[in-house]
Amino acid sequence: MIKVGIVGGTGYTGVELLRLLAVHPQVALQVITSRADAGTQVSQMFPSLRGHVDLAFSHPDHTHLEQCDLVFFATPNGIAMQQVRALLTAGVKVIDLAADFRLQDIASWEKWYGMTHACPDLVAEAVYGLPEMNREKIRTARLVANPGCYPTAVQLGFIPLLEAGVIGPDSLIADAKSGVSGGGRKAEMAFLFPEAADNFKAYGVAGHRHLPEIKQGLTRVAGNPVGLTFVPHLTPMIRGIHATLYGKLTDEVDLQALFERRYANEPFVDVMPAGSHPDTRSVRGANHCRIAVHRPQGGDMVVVLSVIDNLVKGAAGQAVQNMNIMFGLPEDSALNNVALLP
Amino acid sequence: MIKVGIVGGTGYTGVELLRLLAVHPQVALQVITSRADAGTQVSQMFPSLRGHVDLAFSHPDHTHLEQCDLVFFATPNGIAMQQVRALLTAGVKVIDLAADFRLQDIASWEKWYGMTHACPDLVAEAVYGLPEMNREKIRTARLVANPGCYPTAVQLGFIPLLEAGVIGPDSLIADAKSGVSGGGRKAEMAFLFPEAADNFKAYGVAGHRHLPEIKQGLTRVAGNPVGLTFVPHLTPMIRGIHATLYGKLTDEVDLQALFERRYANEPFVDVMPAGSHPDTRSVRGANHCRIAVHRPQGGDMVVVLSVIDNLVKGAAGQAVQNMNIMFGLPEDSALNNVALLP
Amino acid sequence: MIKVGIVGGTGYTGVELLRLLAVHPQVALQVITSRADAGTQVSQMFPSLRGHVDLAFSHPDHTHLEQCDLVFFATPNGIAMQQVRALLTAGVKVIDLAADFRLQDIASWEKWYGMTHACPDLVAEAVYGLPEMNREKIRTARLVANPGCYPTAVQLGFIPLLEAGVIGPDSLIADAKSGVSGGGRKAEMAFLFPEAADNFKAYGVAGHRHLPEIKQGLTRVAGNPVGLTFVPHLTPMIRGIHATLYGKLTDEVDLQALFERRYANEPFVDVMPAGSHPDTRSVRGANHCRIAVHRPQGGDMVVVLSVIDNLVKGAAGQAVQNMNIMFGLPEDSALNNVALLP
Amino acid sequence: MIKVGIVGGTGYTGVELLRLLAVHPQVALQVITSRADAGTQVSQMFPSLRGHVDLAFSHPDHTHLEQCDLVFFATPNGIAMQQVRALLTAGVKVIDLAADFRLQDIASWEKWYGMTHACPDLVAEAVYGLPEMNREKIRTARLVANPGCYPTAVQLGFIPLLEAGVIGPDSLIADAKSGVSGGGRKAEMAFLFPEAADNFKAYGVAGHRHLPEIKQGLTRVAGNPVGLTFVPHLTPMIRGIHATLYGKLTDEVDLQALFERRYANEPFVDVMPAGSHPDTRSVRGANHCRIAVHRPQGGDMVVVLSVIDNLVKGAAGQAVQNMNIMFGLPEDSALNNVALLP
Repeated sequence: MIKVGIVGGTGYTGVELLRLLAVHPQVALQVITSRADAGTQVSQMFPSLRGHVDLAFSHPDHTHLEQCDLVFFATPNGIAMQQVRALLTAGVKVIDLAADFRLQDIASWEKWYGMTHACPDLVAEAVYGLPEMNREKIRTARLVANPGCYPTAVQLGFIPLLEAGVIGPDSLIADAKSGVSGGGRKAEMAFLFPEAADNFKAYGVAGHRHLPEIKQGLTRVAGNPVGLTFVPHLTPMIRGIHATLYGKLTDEVDLQALFERRYANEPFVDVMPAGSHPDTRSVRGANHCRIAVHRPQGGDMVVVLSVIDNLVKGAAGQAVQNMNIMFGLPEDSALNNVALLP
Repeated sequence: MIKVGIVGGTGYTGVELLRLLAVHPQVALQVITSRADAGTQVSQMFPSLRGHVDLAFSHPDHTHLEQCDLVFFATPNGIAMQQVRALLTAGVKVIDLAADFRLQDIASWEKWYGMTHACPDLVAEAVYGLPEMNREKIRTARLVANPGCYPTAVQLGFIPLLEAGVIGPDSLIADAKSGVSGGGRKAEMAFLFPEAADNFKAYGVAGHRHLPEIKQGLTRVAGNPVGLTFVPHLTPMIRGIHATLYGKLTDEVDLQALFERRYANEPFVDVMPAGSHPDTRSVRGANHCRIAVHRPQGGDMVVVLSVIDNLVKGAAGQAVQNMNIMFGLPEDSALNNVALLP
Repeated sequence: MIKVGIVGGTGYTGVELLRLLAVHPQVALQVITSRADAGTQVSQMFPSLRGHVDLAFSHPDHTHLEQCDLVFFATPNGIAMQQVRALLTAGVKVIDLAADFRLQDIASWEKWYGMTHACPDLVAEAVYGLPEMNREKIRTARLVANPGCYPTAVQLGFIPLLEAGVIGPDSLIADAKSGVSGGGRKAEMAFLFPEAADNFKAYGVAGHRHLPEIKQGLTRVAGNPVGLTFVPHLTPMIRGIHATLYGKLTDEVDLQALFERRYANEPFVDVMPAGSHPDTRSVRGANHCRIAVHRPQGGDMVVVLSVIDNLVKGAAGQAVQNMNIMFGLPEDSALNNVALLP
Repeated sequence: MIKVGIVGGTGYTGVELLRLLAVHPQVALQVITSRADAGTQVSQMFPSLRGHVDLAFSHPDHTHLEQCDLVFFATPNGIAMQQVRALLTAGVKVIDLAADFRLQDIASWEKWYGMTHACPDLVAEAVYGLPEMNREKIRTARLVANPGCYPTAVQLGFIPLLEAGVIGPDSLIADAKSGVSGGGRKAEMAFLFPEAADNFKAYGVAGHRHLPEIKQGLTRVAGNPVGLTFVPHLTPMIRGIHATLYGKLTDEVDLQALFERRYANEPFVDVMPAGSHPDTRSVRGANHCRIAVHRPQGGDMVVVLSVIDNLVKGAAGQAVQNMNIMFGLPEDSALNNVALLP
């Protein structure tokens, strides 16, 4: 059994990790920390876990995370980077679900996240945890930077096109829509039900922290800097991301075959039949990314539709997938449930 | 492996059965019928099942259900009663998720359901599939009448009080609220998103088919005819039933202890701590019924709050629970997943 | 033109007052205060008001409310009672949308609201602003206590029955369901979209502040203390209250005629035809209360269904109705719009 | 008073026309037809209209529409074209809210709508009812083709850019999101609450009927054929369209000033301050289009955000605006209400 600790278990990615790990056959949950809620039973805060998780939140100052085999950070940005070095030194593996280790360009990270980075050398070591790109590196990584939710949906949609070099890389567009849980479990006015329900809006058009992360990933794939316009939108649903991606075709190619070939061996990327329109609920609670590729009216614009559950493939599910890879377990352990539909 | 067939797999209880059975370690799904959609891949209609269910809908006239060990009927009312005798004769066990075998009083059934019953003798044999009442009978049953969704939530809330004889049985009130999936996967105007969203309404106040079913069950428990006012409401959510139950206390009793004792050994009934308010999402996708019991201001009115997922404990999950009992499997096989929260 | 001021204009009742008053032909909006947002344009916070309201929020310490003819308090509880005396002295009329002047029993108020009341003598003077009960007193009132949202829906449903003395007053039940805006525009975890959407729960079963307010009103109507069990529920919709009321019939009576007669001259109470199930959206944005009365299966239980928009008839609309009465205007001024359906 | 008739009053655009016209000071509603519901009181089908509309649906074969001054067609496509000639001949003006007169290219219309056009000559006469483009022609029109919902939001967003010639017209992108009422009041499976709630999906990527309408409009504005990729999405909200528009800047220009100048005198187009993100609820129930223009990171991509209520500015409200223009009334008669927020 793998001894697992979770730092920061009271947010949506925290409870989602618990939902998945509670039924993982190879995981022994050791400790969950929360500074604010230390002493509270986890199942009191999240009654869905009654009968499944029999732990209380621990105060982070009085826990011995170094006795774990693996620690997940489900914390706000800037926390993991303070603690990772000690854990790695103690031989503990780490998966950070926040953004601390996602951007290789430290200056860029410090600009977008508004703080000084505590351990640039570990950023250099960290592996970006998108298994569809980096599975082999993840296998041997000590420190995995789990991708953001938008970046997962957007990169998986563009990768086959950029790898094949069949779209112009200089004016990509990602028009992305997210459920409200993407904003986290924070008492912010904009996320109140009466504000967010029966409403739709864009946000962060001038610039969003996931923009440099996506550009970094797509630049690696394309081999050259890409131009990307990224517009996120807040959608009145709990979970789900739908990325609608636009690129200009520069070559004749069988798009459907290209996508099917690229993801033929990927357990969690499902290329839908030609002409499909994946809906977000088809992955609700599941770790799959479902993708469809279109070429409207046979013109030169490629339209890719890519859906994930932002809390699963976009966060906790992908983290568990990375854990499975790091520990040599079947990649779909605890991840083979069917999406909840309706 | 138990060979399982499903008649009528295109409704919400059908796809929910598939979601659960697809990961059941002891089930081999043999056949799913649909008259209207014969030939269509199940996973084409329900993309959430891609990679999990590799069957096409069969035409009911060309299937050999008698080769199954167990057949679930997830059909409209009045279908199962036409086919059950032949299946039983062939040695197949049957669980009917519709209402054909729920009411022992044939005249009452014919009045509420508006048709002549095809096999009153089998009604007499059928076991009402509420494990918390009838577990031993279910174990040896050939034919199980799976309870309705409202009746499950309401009966589980009243049972401890009526068994103990501590409330007056003549003026019970069940104010029940259901998500829209309770109406089935039917293209009816009232269930359209623009009609049902951001809206709340009662319906069927004059009389609802679940009324005689609940009264029959509670009468058995109380040992005498009960008086019940049942008001169902349509709630703008996909899944979930919340029953708010009112009864007049006739005796001093420790209500919390009474409920905890009654359900101490029930794997799927969770008595919450005193003072709790269970929310429907705490059972979303799970087979649990969560219950809290209150006595406001220490008066003589007992208020019970009982929540289930109408498609799981209120339909497909309870059917799988019954199957597990009938075939001597662990009762929670395929039912131990954690509710999807948020 | 009536010079109107609003204290506390940044909550949901505040913006709703603005929506209604912006098109009121006899109102000149003079001032809107907000301590936290002084200086901010109202239409910047609420873009729906762009082109309709050209005011900025004023700091309460630098406003001259005494120059208004009428001041609405759309503040948290406990604010109005600090300021009302000075305004009344200056000849300004006041409508308090909070609870400061609703309960005549000061001790009870102090217990339920957890503070010492600042002006018990003014409570004695205040008129409870339910026009269907107190229209004549409202006409000449200086100070009106605008009723709570639940109390409006519940009292309007019980009044005809209690006035006629046809139900037992000792065990009334009000099972009430509210949209999330009833919780106010406050950044609280429980009201976040991912917490409140696709979910249903009871709350405050042990005791809710609207309980003594409803009991006070019904006791006046019945002429004797009433027994009431009141269970509020949080419903995944933005606006709307649906009260389902239960009472035991003690007399034979034509219920439909009783209700129609009682409200024959009420412009904002609509008794629906026998057998109706009013839905909350039929009053979305409108000042109407729609009511239906049932007697299921001809038994002795009366079931009343009563719906309002909690922000209109349950708050700002009723306040404007009271203003219209106090200033001798047509009672439906600014209140004759049609509900937004769908 | 203008005598008004409505053909096909049982859909969402029909009831929305009634909501607006019921309070229009210059309109006398004469007749509302419905083949299926003839004889039914309008307010029985739509209780929100109780007390406002005292008419029953008439059978279309027994009505005298020629006695009206104006007839609105709120019918499915292909109905108006059968009846318009007779009405025009009788001196009645007509506004068609369906698509019969929107496309000047008859062959294209017949291809996209799958039927033969009944009166191509009247198409040539019809004025496309987008007041921001055609106000003067509308003033004297006998027959107005009311624009589609998507086309209204998309064209208003692109017009300033194309008129000024500052974006490349050959690869425009319109990523549009619509509430479910855009699908009409039809009992279709995809629009059921359990299908559409908590879900998001694209549809019609291969081709949507609004594509040729938008291209026709933008081609007129640009003076040359435009290239447009149009991807509509179904969003879990009742009302509202959010169009996110992308174009490549070919010239340096002050975008904010350009938009403000273009719409300075438009009563129903509101250019938001620079940096804004309009939300759909800011126009819920109102006839406004709110627009914001962005240039992310100062690059060469222009992003326009354009929101309307699909049933108001996208249908019934724009139709009333056109009526007001045709009859010389104040353009905002019956259209000056404030959006319902929250």
